[in-house]
Amino acid sequence: MDFSKLNGLVPAVVQDSESREVLMVGFMNEDALARTRETGFVTFFSRSRNELWTKGDTSGNRLQVISLFTDCDDDTVLVKVKRLGGGNVCHTGARSCFFKELA
Amino acid sequence: MDFSKLNGLVPAVVQDSESREVLMVGFMNEDALARTRETGFVTFFSRSRNELWTKGDTSGNRLQVISLFTDCDDDTVLVKVKRLGGGNVCHTGARSCFFKELA
Repeated sequence: MDFSKLNGLVPAVVQDSESREVLMVGFMNEDALARTRETGFVTFFSRSRNELWTKGDTSGNRLQVISLFTDCDDDTVLVKVKRLGGGNVCHTGARSCFFKELA
Repeated sequence: MDFSKLNGLVPAVVQDSESREVLMVGFMNEDALARTRETGFVTFFSRSRNELWTKGDTSGNRLQVISLFTDCDDDTVLVKVKRLGGGNVCHTGARSCFFKELA
């Protein structure tokens, strides 16, 4: 992976492996990607808290990795997941973070 | 939209509106998003060339906007598109840029 274009980070798109709904986008650094692959649960790097966070650690709504892809120039990750817990990915309680359509 | 977190850019996830396949991820600045909404064709900001580029301007494989979403904290865009031209989105000739599965 090429982490050089974005100060050590790559965008990580999370997609429901069954419904194919795009659930959220976070960022991963090298450690977050390694942790994601080792544990099988999606781990991001929090830009605001400057630390790793495994999605769902507090809510229980973890994201289980089903498959993991990189793009053609290795600067973006696509993670296909199974939603665990209540299955609501967004902190607002919505299933997906992309619930606001621009007019 | 909040363009402040990434030096004036937001990631833009492009998804096929019918198959729901994630096709690519690019970046938009405020102008690129405005151009995308005005023209109905996906326009990114190229970080390497430091300019706007409308996807498919040279290949003909433009991406027609079907719907456009922002996420809960307004720092990412999801564009659902219809693939025009040959329909291959990746510069390698693949339909999607995410054809490499990480082992």
